Amino acid sequence: MPSNISSSSSSGNNASLAKTWIRGFDSLIGGGFPRSSFIILAGHPGTGKSTFAIQFLLNGAAMAKETGIYASFLEREEIFIRNMSKSYGFDFKKPLEEGTLQFLEFTPMAPDVVSDTFNMIVKRVIETGAKRLVIDSLNALFVETSPAEQRRILEIVLNRIIKDQGCTVIAILEQSIGKTEIGFGIEEFVADGLIVFESYIEGLEIKRRAIVRKLRGMQHSSRYQSILLNPNEGISFLQLAE
Amino acid sequence: MPSNISSSSSSGNNASLAKTWIRGFDSLIGGGFPRSSFIILAGHPGTGKSTFAIQFLLNGAAMAKETGIYASFLEREEIFIRNMSKSYGFDFKKPLEEGTLQFLEFTPMAPDVVSDTFNMIVKRVIETGAKRLVIDSLNALFVETSPAEQRRILEIVLNRIIKDQGCTVIAILEQSIGKTEIGFGIEEFVADGLIVFESYIEGLEIKRRAIVRKLRGMQHSSRYQSILLNPNEGISFLQLAE
Amino acid sequence: MPSNISSSSSSGNNASLAKTWIRGFDSLIGGGFPRSSFIILAGHPGTGKSTFAIQFLLNGAAMAKETGIYASFLEREEIFIRNMSKSYGFDFKKPLEEGTLQFLEFTPMAPDVVSDTFNMIVKRVIETGAKRLVIDSLNALFVETSPAEQRRILEIVLNRIIKDQGCTVIAILEQSIGKTEIGFGIEEFVADGLIVFESYIEGLEIKRRAIVRKLRGMQHSSRYQSILLNPNEGISFLQLAE
Amino acid sequence: MPSNISSSSSSGNNASLAKTWIRGFDSLIGGGFPRSSFIILAGHPGTGKSTFAIQFLLNGAAMAKETGIYASFLEREEIFIRNMSKSYGFDFKKPLEEGTLQFLEFTPMAPDVVSDTFNMIVKRVIETGAKRLVIDSLNALFVETSPAEQRRILEIVLNRIIKDQGCTVIAILEQSIGKTEIGFGIEEFVADGLIVFESYIEGLEIKRRAIVRKLRGMQHSSRYQSILLNPNEGISFLQLAE
Amino acid sequence: MPSNISSSSSSGNNASLAKTWIRGFDSLIGGGFPRSSFIILAGHPGTGKSTFAIQFLLNGAAMAKETGIYASFLEREEIFIRNMSKSYGFDFKKPLEEGTLQFLEFTPMAPDVVSDTFNMIVKRVIETGAKRLVIDSLNALFVETSPAEQRRILEIVLNRIIKDQGCTVIAILEQSIGKTEIGFGIEEFVADGLIVFESYIEGLEIKRRAIVRKLRGMQHSSRYQSILLNPNEGISFLQLAE
Amino acid sequence: MPSNISSSSSSGNNASLAKTWIRGFDSLIGGGFPRSSFIILAGHPGTGKSTFAIQFLLNGAAMAKETGIYASFLEREEIFIRNMSKSYGFDFKKPLEEGTLQFLEFTPMAPDVVSDTFNMIVKRVIETGAKRLVIDSLNALFVETSPAEQRRILEIVLNRIIKDQGCTVIAILEQSIGKTEIGFGIEEFVADGLIVFESYIEGLEIKRRAIVRKLRGMQHSSRYQSILLNPNEGISFLQLAE
Repeated sequence: MPSNISSSSSSGNNASLAKTWIRGFDSLIGGGFPRSSFIILAGHPGTGKSTFAIQFLLNGAAMAKETGIYASFLEREEIFIRNMSKSYGFDFKKPLEEGTLQFLEFTPMAPDVVSDTFNMIVKRVIETGAKRLVIDSLNALFVETSPAEQRRILEIVLNRIIKDQGCTVIAILEQSIGKTEIGFGIEEFVADGLIVFESYIEGLEIKRRAIVRKLRGMQHSSRYQSILLNPNEGISFLQLAE
Repeated sequence: MPSNISSSSSSGNNASLAKTWIRGFDSLIGGGFPRSSFIILAGHPGTGKSTFAIQFLLNGAAMAKETGIYASFLEREEIFIRNMSKSYGFDFKKPLEEGTLQFLEFTPMAPDVVSDTFNMIVKRVIETGAKRLVIDSLNALFVETSPAEQRRILEIVLNRIIKDQGCTVIAILEQSIGKTEIGFGIEEFVADGLIVFESYIEGLEIKRRAIVRKLRGMQHSSRYQSILLNPNEGISFLQLAE
Repeated sequence: MPSNISSSSSSGNNASLAKTWIRGFDSLIGGGFPRSSFIILAGHPGTGKSTFAIQFLLNGAAMAKETGIYASFLEREEIFIRNMSKSYGFDFKKPLEEGTLQFLEFTPMAPDVVSDTFNMIVKRVIETGAKRLVIDSLNALFVETSPAEQRRILEIVLNRIIKDQGCTVIAILEQSIGKTEIGFGIEEFVADGLIVFESYIEGLEIKRRAIVRKLRGMQHSSRYQSILLNPNEGISFLQLAE
Repeated sequence: MPSNISSSSSSGNNASLAKTWIRGFDSLIGGGFPRSSFIILAGHPGTGKSTFAIQFLLNGAAMAKETGIYASFLEREEIFIRNMSKSYGFDFKKPLEEGTLQFLEFTPMAPDVVSDTFNMIVKRVIETGAKRLVIDSLNALFVETSPAEQRRILEIVLNRIIKDQGCTVIAILEQSIGKTEIGFGIEEFVADGLIVFESYIEGLEIKRRAIVRKLRGMQHSSRYQSILLNPNEGISFLQLAE
Repeated sequence: MPSNISSSSSSGNNASLAKTWIRGFDSLIGGGFPRSSFIILAGHPGTGKSTFAIQFLLNGAAMAKETGIYASFLEREEIFIRNMSKSYGFDFKKPLEEGTLQFLEFTPMAPDVVSDTFNMIVKRVIETGAKRLVIDSLNALFVETSPAEQRRILEIVLNRIIKDQGCTVIAILEQSIGKTEIGFGIEEFVADGLIVFESYIEGLEIKRRAIVRKLRGMQHSSRYQSILLNPNEGISFLQLAE
Repeated sequence: MPSNISSSSSSGNNASLAKTWIRGFDSLIGGGFPRSSFIILAGHPGTGKSTFAIQFLLNGAAMAKETGIYASFLEREEIFIRNMSKSYGFDFKKPLEEGTLQFLEFTPMAPDVVSDTFNMIVKRVIETGAKRLVIDSLNALFVETSPAEQRRILEIVLNRIIKDQGCTVIAILEQSIGKTEIGFGIEEFVADGLIVFESYIEGLEIKRRAIVRKLRGMQHSSRYQSILLNPNEGISFLQLAE
């Protein structure tokens, strides 16, 4: 078991929970995300959202042999992997060779091809039997998309990916610094879970913390956790002292 | 009587009040919602709005044999029921078999079919003689609907469902985190009742509380109540210590 | 004299003042509203605006035999009366039979018939010689009406109802919770009077208070009053302790 | 000399200053408004703006035999005069008979006739040789008028009324309660003077205060003054204790 | 040397700096504005922006025989000069006769002639060899002008006036009271310098202060200065006590 | 080694890091920017963004013989260089002669030529083998550009400049004074790094500080640093005392 994986005795191939094996996290949400759930991971730049999301996939591949797909609308695979490797020493080689990690790289797209793109993702989820999907990010995807079209896309995710394929989805939602509202006003209601990563200033330092705002079907923590980003481990969570 | 039902001696088939039998709630509003009233249940994600709404229907079925309809524009029946069962141990089997609980599942819809959808709901209310209806949620329904069209839809609810059929309606209104205004500016004025569920940060913890802002025709509490979400019981309300 | 009527020795058929006979209110405004004035009653949901307005009409009918019209764009007569009767024990039977209270019920309307609607109200005011009119509410009426059209409608009210018929008008203006601005930016300037009902949180409780912000032609109180909503009395006002 | 006129020895027919003779005011602005200046009087409802404006005209008529025109886009002459008489005991009879006070009453107007209206005002100013003009209010006038059109109208005021006729203009600018910005973003820069009347809550009471924010060509007070509205005197200003 | 000119031994005909000779100011910015720079002077109404700008021109004419142009989109020459003379005793006669001060008076203009207007200004700058130009104000000029058109106009200023003619430009930017953002979001980035004049309430008094936010190519003060507006001197700056 | 270059023993021609050699900065970000990264430098006017950016190029030229391109959409080369020379004594002569510093000067442009412009920049990066590029600024560039078009432009930068040419890009993002949100809502998510320069008022003085909000692939400081702007050195960073 790699050092960056949370010590947990369960097999991870649990029928009802998609464990993250991220240190300090699964215990906050009752053991793992409910399978076939749609989780929004919202937060400020630099709070570790992508790190969390890739570890969710890497750990699923390493611990449970579950295939994960990272659909990136922002970063190129090569650079993403290089940065994650450098920062945290993650090993991408094995899961990429085994096919348990797949990276889908999308260029910015015209609003009228957004649905097509999602159909491509659906196709890949079906072909690979992926059980975990990351969408990075909804903002990049929803540039100039109308609210009604956003609803239709979310419907594809919910029905064809989550319901028909039993895949658990983490969608990243970027929050601008200085903006207090989260999201476009529809995603956070559709989602089964809403995890918020915040950066805040304490004295002269930026700090990061996370809180689970919603998780349907689970008893979850309702307390802020400190977010740690350590070399050779990636993200982990620690109870914040008051 | 199931354990998640508030101990109350009255039969529930009272001509003028639709009891919720939710622990700690009916006493706040003078015994129950006025029958044939239109109640807005507004609140942040993760504060228990859907839990409250489904318990309103389940308890009405179990205690008073009243048929209830859950019209969902967000979640699929299967997943909704699975989550509610897992979280709170609610028993959906009996009311679904008896037909005292009915689930209507709508996909995201184009603005021009919103009225048709409501006509379908009206038809079902008439056919089943439902006395309780939940709409989850107005936000999902009103995506890209003009204020004037919203008024016309609310008119259908008020006249054909509430007035003609004597059905009590709870409509959920999602409030974004970080947003202080409630609603679109029309629903909360039309409604007979406005219950607000809030999540707030105290120290390092998210807490939940509820307050009755308006309830026409009833003497009601004007004090914040703590919202509890317990396994095997669902939602309940407790007086908040100052 | 009914118990819910303020003890006042004057006849109420005073040429220049339209008394409300609401406990604690007339003394705040120098004895009553100036006749033929246009009063905006603005406030949050659940603060007693409709209660105030209906008492203004009921008391005018009972004490001064003045005919009053309640033009409702939100609630149906039957439900309105049932709720008011239940909450406060008001007796609607006599004034409705005598015709000193009339209820006009409007369905949501297309913007292009708003002027026609007002012509209907004018006609009824003329036919009945009504001296008191309530409009509930401007928001419901002004959905999707342009500012210039709003001006033209207010002109009908001001000229044909107020000036030509000597009728005193109370128009309700709903204010969303969490919104600090009042009105659409035109009504509150046109109005002769502006009464604001606020709900606010003190400790864990919602409280209500009222203040007279403007009343042309009168020396008026400029102090917050506590709003009380008591069974069998309706609304009353009490000096707030500091 | 009427009781509501500030005791001042000067004749008022001073070539360069338009005195207001309002108690406590002229001394704040170095003796009076510069003749041929354009003054914005901005403020919340109920702070005495119209009272100030009519006293500016009444006093000009009584003390200096200067003709003043009150151009009202909101209130009818009859009601305006009745209210002002009742509240403050002002005597309108003499100046109206002498023609030293003239009331122009405008109905709400379509945006395309706004310029025509101003031409009518110009015509009246020329015919009567008026030296004082009140516009009540810019908001009512500028409903649905584009910024460029607003500029053109202000140009008529500045050139044809102020410059060509030597008339001093007070334009009322209504400020909504709860709104912190003043004006539409153009008038307050064009104006030679900007007087702000504020209502504010202190403890449980609404209080009123005024401050001179700008007055070109004059040394003026930069201190808040308390606004008093007394029967038989109208508006007056008093130094606020700190 | 007139009394309102800062005592400074340098000739002012310095090749690289455009001195203001305003008491207390040049020392804040390292001796004067860099020649051929574009300075934004932003501030609330009544803080002395126009006074500063005209003194920049008057002093340039008196001390260095540099021609200055005041391009006014708001005030007429006659009134501007009368007000400035009355308030501060400035002598306009000599520089106007000599042609070292020129006043350009523009009426409000349609958006499509804004570029033409600037070409007129360019022409005048070339003809007169003006070394100082004031634009009063950008807001008046940019009413209903698109951001792209604003960019093109600023380009004319930067290239044809500043770069080709070596003229130093002060552009006034009006800031509404109660608004915290400065400018339209483009000018303050294009400008070489940004001076902010603020009015603020301290106790019951309005006070004025200034700060240099940006000045390319110069070491400048980063401390608030008190703004004084004295008869017979005009504007001056004084270090604020903490 | 010039005096304004941070004392650092490494050669700078490091394969993976683009050092800035700015005093106090490289140590904050783990030694330098990751090569081929896209860095947003956001901040208020007058906080030293352009100074930082030009030093990034000058130092790269002097210390590592890397060619740098300054693409300016705001300032002309001549004036930019003059101001930077005057303020900080930077020597532009050698790098300009050697061609290791190149200045591209763009006039304001119509939205439809923005892509063409970027193709020109790409061409120059390819021809010169530039390893460092500054874009000053995104705001000037994105005037009236749609979000979808902004995405496409950023794609050109990311793919053709950064990925294909291995060039490190610093893009300046101007933040208006008084505005708390950063950026247009897309750039800061696309970027690999986000450095924020803030000006803030402390007592009566404007101060400047910087913080690294995000830097993919690097362990970075999360603490505010004081920004110093010294003659003969340019920008440097110092730990802020608490």
